[in-house]
Amino acid sequence: MPSRPWLGAPRWQAPTSSPCLPGQSGKLWGGRFVGSIDPIMEKFNSSISYDRRMWEADIQGSKAYSKGLQQAGLLTKAELDKILQGLDKVAEEWAIGTFAQNPNDEDIHTANERRLKELIGETAGKLHTGRSRNDQVVTDLRLWMRKSCSSLSSHLRTLLMTMMERAEAEKDVLFPGYTHLQRAQPIRWSHWILSGAIAGNPLGVDRELLQRELNFSAITLNSMDATSERDFVAEFLFWGSLCMTHLSKMAEDLIIYGTKEFSFVQLSDAYSTGSSLMPQKKNPDSLELIRSKAGRVFGRCAGLLMTLKGLPSTYNKDLQEDKEAVFEVFDTMNSVLQVATGIISTMKINKVCMEEALSPDMLATDLAYYLVRKGMPFRQAHEASGKAVFMAETKKLALNQLSLSELQTISPLFSGDVSHVWNYSNSVEQYKALGGTAKSSVEWQIQQLRDLLRTLPQ
Amino acid sequence: MPSRPWLGAPRWQAPTSSPCLPGQSGKLWGGRFVGSIDPIMEKFNSSISYDRRMWEADIQGSKAYSKGLQQAGLLTKAELDKILQGLDKVAEEWAIGTFAQNPNDEDIHTANERRLKELIGETAGKLHTGRSRNDQVVTDLRLWMRKSCSSLSSHLRTLLMTMMERAEAEKDVLFPGYTHLQRAQPIRWSHWILSGAIAGNPLGVDRELLQRELNFSAITLNSMDATSERDFVAEFLFWGSLCMTHLSKMAEDLIIYGTKEFSFVQLSDAYSTGSSLMPQKKNPDSLELIRSKAGRVFGRCAGLLMTLKGLPSTYNKDLQEDKEAVFEVFDTMNSVLQVATGIISTMKINKVCMEEALSPDMLATDLAYYLVRKGMPFRQAHEASGKAVFMAETKKLALNQLSLSELQTISPLFSGDVSHVWNYSNSVEQYKALGGTAKSSVEWQIQQLRDLLRTLPQ
Amino acid sequence: MPSRPWLGAPRWQAPTSSPCLPGQSGKLWGGRFVGSIDPIMEKFNSSISYDRRMWEADIQGSKAYSKGLQQAGLLTKAELDKILQGLDKVAEEWAIGTFAQNPNDEDIHTANERRLKELIGETAGKLHTGRSRNDQVVTDLRLWMRKSCSSLSSHLRTLLMTMMERAEAEKDVLFPGYTHLQRAQPIRWSHWILSGAIAGNPLGVDRELLQRELNFSAITLNSMDATSERDFVAEFLFWGSLCMTHLSKMAEDLIIYGTKEFSFVQLSDAYSTGSSLMPQKKNPDSLELIRSKAGRVFGRCAGLLMTLKGLPSTYNKDLQEDKEAVFEVFDTMNSVLQVATGIISTMKINKVCMEEALSPDMLATDLAYYLVRKGMPFRQAHEASGKAVFMAETKKLALNQLSLSELQTISPLFSGDVSHVWNYSNSVEQYKALGGTAKSSVEWQIQQLRDLLRTLPQ
Amino acid sequence: MPSRPWLGAPRWQAPTSSPCLPGQSGKLWGGRFVGSIDPIMEKFNSSISYDRRMWEADIQGSKAYSKGLQQAGLLTKAELDKILQGLDKVAEEWAIGTFAQNPNDEDIHTANERRLKELIGETAGKLHTGRSRNDQVVTDLRLWMRKSCSSLSSHLRTLLMTMMERAEAEKDVLFPGYTHLQRAQPIRWSHWILSGAIAGNPLGVDRELLQRELNFSAITLNSMDATSERDFVAEFLFWGSLCMTHLSKMAEDLIIYGTKEFSFVQLSDAYSTGSSLMPQKKNPDSLELIRSKAGRVFGRCAGLLMTLKGLPSTYNKDLQEDKEAVFEVFDTMNSVLQVATGIISTMKINKVCMEEALSPDMLATDLAYYLVRKGMPFRQAHEASGKAVFMAETKKLALNQLSLSELQTISPLFSGDVSHVWNYSNSVEQYKALGGTAKSSVEWQIQQLRDLLRTLPQ
Repeated sequence: MPSRPWLGAPRWQAPTSSPCLPGQSGKLWGGRFVGSIDPIMEKFNSSISYDRRMWEADIQGSKAYSKGLQQAGLLTKAELDKILQGLDKVAEEWAIGTFAQNPNDEDIHTANERRLKELIGETAGKLHTGRSRNDQVVTDLRLWMRKSCSSLSSHLRTLLMTMMERAEAEKDVLFPGYTHLQRAQPIRWSHWILSGAIAGNPLGVDRELLQRELNFSAITLNSMDATSERDFVAEFLFWGSLCMTHLSKMAEDLIIYGTKEFSFVQLSDAYSTGSSLMPQKKNPDSLELIRSKAGRVFGRCAGLLMTLKGLPSTYNKDLQEDKEAVFEVFDTMNSVLQVATGIISTMKINKVCMEEALSPDMLATDLAYYLVRKGMPFRQAHEASGKAVFMAETKKLALNQLSLSELQTISPLFSGDVSHVWNYSNSVEQYKALGGTAKSSVEWQIQQLRDLLRTLPQ
Repeated sequence: MPSRPWLGAPRWQAPTSSPCLPGQSGKLWGGRFVGSIDPIMEKFNSSISYDRRMWEADIQGSKAYSKGLQQAGLLTKAELDKILQGLDKVAEEWAIGTFAQNPNDEDIHTANERRLKELIGETAGKLHTGRSRNDQVVTDLRLWMRKSCSSLSSHLRTLLMTMMERAEAEKDVLFPGYTHLQRAQPIRWSHWILSGAIAGNPLGVDRELLQRELNFSAITLNSMDATSERDFVAEFLFWGSLCMTHLSKMAEDLIIYGTKEFSFVQLSDAYSTGSSLMPQKKNPDSLELIRSKAGRVFGRCAGLLMTLKGLPSTYNKDLQEDKEAVFEVFDTMNSVLQVATGIISTMKINKVCMEEALSPDMLATDLAYYLVRKGMPFRQAHEASGKAVFMAETKKLALNQLSLSELQTISPLFSGDVSHVWNYSNSVEQYKALGGTAKSSVEWQIQQLRDLLRTLPQ
Repeated sequence: MPSRPWLGAPRWQAPTSSPCLPGQSGKLWGGRFVGSIDPIMEKFNSSISYDRRMWEADIQGSKAYSKGLQQAGLLTKAELDKILQGLDKVAEEWAIGTFAQNPNDEDIHTANERRLKELIGETAGKLHTGRSRNDQVVTDLRLWMRKSCSSLSSHLRTLLMTMMERAEAEKDVLFPGYTHLQRAQPIRWSHWILSGAIAGNPLGVDRELLQRELNFSAITLNSMDATSERDFVAEFLFWGSLCMTHLSKMAEDLIIYGTKEFSFVQLSDAYSTGSSLMPQKKNPDSLELIRSKAGRVFGRCAGLLMTLKGLPSTYNKDLQEDKEAVFEVFDTMNSVLQVATGIISTMKINKVCMEEALSPDMLATDLAYYLVRKGMPFRQAHEASGKAVFMAETKKLALNQLSLSELQTISPLFSGDVSHVWNYSNSVEQYKALGGTAKSSVEWQIQQLRDLLRTLPQ
Repeated sequence: MPSRPWLGAPRWQAPTSSPCLPGQSGKLWGGRFVGSIDPIMEKFNSSISYDRRMWEADIQGSKAYSKGLQQAGLLTKAELDKILQGLDKVAEEWAIGTFAQNPNDEDIHTANERRLKELIGETAGKLHTGRSRNDQVVTDLRLWMRKSCSSLSSHLRTLLMTMMERAEAEKDVLFPGYTHLQRAQPIRWSHWILSGAIAGNPLGVDRELLQRELNFSAITLNSMDATSERDFVAEFLFWGSLCMTHLSKMAEDLIIYGTKEFSFVQLSDAYSTGSSLMPQKKNPDSLELIRSKAGRVFGRCAGLLMTLKGLPSTYNKDLQEDKEAVFEVFDTMNSVLQVATGIISTMKINKVCMEEALSPDMLATDLAYYLVRKGMPFRQAHEASGKAVFMAETKKLALNQLSLSELQTISPLFSGDVSHVWNYSNSVEQYKALGGTAKSSVEWQIQQLRDLLRTLPQ
């Protein structure tokens, strides 16, 4: 049971007894506090377990800030040099793994400043003159994200390039296009690949937006807003969520295409796992993990937006939630993009199964177009073709096994040339419009993607 | 209890009895179906109750498509004219409110085509030759959003202009800046207004992105992706979510500033409501509603992303969820932006209360800077100033009531000129850096916002 | 551009000009207000477009409250009778559709009270003595939910009963069990049906919790909490979300089982739709809509929780978001449960395809168990069986086509009785443990479900 | 650039070259695989970095399972003893920190079994005969949660007890009750405390539900459902979300009550932090962190539900997302409940400021009740009181400074006894109904809470 410190103290009063001398604790705000911190609160409040990851950004930001102080006449050249050398030494300790954390280091900023003071003495106390920690935190995060996003961008580029190359190499493979997971019309396998790659395209755009945001080309316009505004974090988390939604759809397709019943694709062993119980199993764990991460990444985005909702303006400690969200989403995207690249680059396709899955009823639309070309309005042609499908089903025949006379009971417009309809390659080649599944159109899409990739930073 | 239609039918077979003749139902796919639709399913499947809102976009899209058909030689000039005139007539019926819906109209596309057929006969059946409804749905939604977003953009512009004008007019009012809702440093009232207006800025950028997306300057690159890709919807819903997050923060500030205890602002009666029970109450319902809508809008964004997660590629009926989300978010943003403009433009501020809330302890940072200017490192100066705050609290004095000799027990650097610290206006004027709260800086921010607003479409 | 009402009024003052006399507007708080309401704000604030749905609960609550007033001596018996008769008349008007809304009716509570006053005069003004509208709102919502949830409960019961009957009727059909969508082991079809039905079980439990909550058996313990606490709403929305998650999984299975490649099930036409373009298509729209609604329902849950986050205690207008969320989720669940029942009760299964999908490699676990029974530790047996699978694949044979001598190169424990392994029915019958897929176990599950359904209210 | 392993292999074929001998890798499914795993995939797939936290549950579950194996005749008594002793040894190594992880240990289950085999040899291979890892994973998680939830329950109980004791001790302090953050009516401070504590009450109920779920009193009814059903995880995450929503509201109140402008409460130094920049600041970081965690916890709930949406039945690797969510929510709740207890138990209240905030206009409802008692219908009385408020505002008087004759211009029912209205204690004492703010009612609430706490496990 907690004691009752409030009893006997119904009136508010300045604290009179001080168990520890002010300023002894080493906390940045040590000058005034007289109570001690609840250790659970200390841990609850501390962020160093995750924000030490920004050590390099913190040093980089402090070096820039100290140069500003010298320009403003608040540091002498000698003091600046001392600080810069000290910061370099701190950075070196982090880089080689000898930086020793102290239990009182509540965040990376405190830790670096504490260490700097140990190395160069009181001059360290001048480093953050006129700079709030809230500013330091948000600047470090922006710096860290600028650097990290460029590695995500590179992984994304590799994934898209893999898809492009694969689309190029396999553009002669036909298989069923599905809508509602029902067989619709024959399409090129490359057309499917590009439908994912091109969905990847907007991602590129978003990333540019982020980069633009992060290259600091503009200054923040309002000091109150600067420390509390987390749009760049929210945008990054949403980019991740939307990107993962696309990848979850690609994963879903491949999981289904990889079932025994479809047998269109086979994951390489490098991206499959077996069952501890069933020796014959080879499971697409890699794809399932990709699919599942859409939830995780979105959850971080949702969590941050809920945290931001209804906050008073300027800095509130609630904003501390931003970093773990960014780090987890970064790590997840970093793995997912590389694993997806590995899957796409090593997966085998089964051309025989893909082509066997093409069935004459998928040409029913072509049959309607045949009638349209003979002059029938499309809605009537669609109905006539539907009647043919129904007739074939009733007679337990394939659609292309209906005789001409049977077709003519549906419409007198059918004649001998209807036999030309029953050809999958011809069907596919009809869709020459840009974006379609004809060979020329798929080649155009590949070229569009190639051009886009050239514009992305390597 | 439902009957057991499956009993006695363990084997799959083509339907043999047909209660209604094929093609009689008037459904688009009427040619083949032999069963009838469960009425609950019919309603569950139907979207016309909300998608009729896109009647104009649907007509617009169909007119464009029919011109394409003529160019492709699939319509004669006479047929084209007949269709265009028919579509104009349908549009007119919607515009004047005489369009009569039919229970079989499951969506706006079916309804318009059905009516067109009634008006011009069989030629109507040629209108959608080679066009899938999935394509029609997504094109209509893009057209509707292009038009609707421009009205949101205009409301946003008006809100920002109101904030700018108000910031201009009231730039001499000082009041406490808060962090963690604790008084921090004196700032200009206009600095607070602009902190919200400038957070509005990124919204403008996003809207541009949306507009770029929606002006169809580019064609979609892949036909499979074109019907299933809903990034433009997700981006819009996220724009709404982020925008509402900002507005929820502004609302939260104003609700708190409007409490009796703060008394900084007073909402006009036009945006307040009373209590059914307590006659003295005047409640900031308008602000609370704005704050609450952040949840609703985000909920729609979250819902759509969850719906998209793990879908197979191309069209699945799941995508039908997009429109109600877009419409609700549009309606919400449409109201919120206008109500926010009304609130900001009519709200009164209470200069006296604002200035009374400034207290000498808010100049403790200035006291530290005073010592910094005398040569003390900032961390030591911060600690010294903290000791002064503690001393004043202990002696139950205001910070500026400490005598020089008392201050000198903390640091010998204090001298008579410390009295210059105790001036709120001077304090504010120190922050001349761009984005700061000095008058010149606030004026610069106003100018930045004015320049931005000029670039936005009126 | 809005005008600038704040200019020239920097000081806060009591309003001096009053465009309308106080009390004339008919608003409940009319006594004090002097400004008029912005019409956009009026609409933004109004809830009658959706909360009129609670008219019956509002009358019911008011009748109960007025009886309480009479007991407390605040109404005479004659006044009570007048009020009760008046309320009955209002209810009748709603029931027969003659209730005429008034543009000033901002919510159902105001509307009913306004109409009551028209019918019985000033006595109506005594009805809500000492009762806040916030209390009225939350009580009405609880009453509405109590009634509405019982109809959901009944639909859920019918769905579970349908599943139970179907499981009973089809328990002799075997088909592949899948994990990771890879064929795992043979199971009974009824085992799959029950896996969904039993996942429905917890739903029943939650519903009981809700009912317990809503039967008002206990009073709320704290008046501050009573008007602001929306746990019962959040719990309902989460029940909906979790229930929809289960149904989305069932829908996903059936969509996949209904592909041409699987061909295990065929939806009845009553729950399928065709394609406007492709005559041969029959799409599982009903299942896709069910799957999609998981997003919508969860979105409402997410939205409400975000709205609740960080609200100050007691009533805030933000809480008005609760009702539209409840109504939409109710309507969605109401349709989904009925459509799901229709789907399950009319869907045909294709026993031939199901059994053809059973393949010898699915007995690899049985092969391992065979070795375990001969004394080999399970991990070794699993590895040995894995080698057999690999050998069969390499030789392009089915697993049961390996000769005894081939098997003996893997382990000398194999002998002639290994042939007994290759029997799907035997394999299934091994799993007699409760919850397993043996016939007796499936029958036990059916009985468990039947017993559970008996305990649910009809 | 990845190589193109798919080129030249357009046909699916059994792998022919094997870079490593089957079974050498030590993976559980080692018998069959011939490729090697991509190291990024290996890390992506691995869960031991977080699931080793369940080491104790895993040992506990394995001990129980091995006893089951012996009963089933699949282990001899000697083998069972060997396994149990081995498992105890493994547990001891974890407990004292000497368990050495191996890079091939992909999860805690593999790790424990690998170590067991090292300790006791081949007998270890019999441990999981007939048990899938999916079953092991979900059982371990249930065991871990059963144990961990009881510690959360204990922290929750301590928090509620602290609130109860504080409510008991401070029940004579009056302060303003707020709705919409506007002063409403005088209430007891204890009434506020209990409004939070009683909102905590439903949490208790939910926890019971969880405990019921977790005590394994019932077996799972369906083996397919058993490994894929994660309702117990989703329910836990939602319990956390709803609980955090309540705590975020309590935190919001206290942050506002702790502003200089309100000055109702003062956090102890143990739960405050200072500013790195502003020496006078004392920030309620602890409350802000509590408020912020509502977002984090909900984000995990949202993420898991999205992950679950649309999954096929039975086990999919997607389900691996459950554990990190549970662990993070557990850790968060664990800290939050303890920090909240610390805050509530050490926070000081400022009785003087609280009572100074009571203002006569908060008695306007009492003024209306005065007229009701004189026979005026409530709606008229409310309007009359509203006019009095307006008159007082216009005359710049406090409401209780209006003269009797002034009041009589509003209603002739006012007489000399109206002066009795102006007494805060009398006002509060009117609300004797259960749940009200009268002293007796607050005492009853305390007793209700005390009784509830007695029923919770200590």
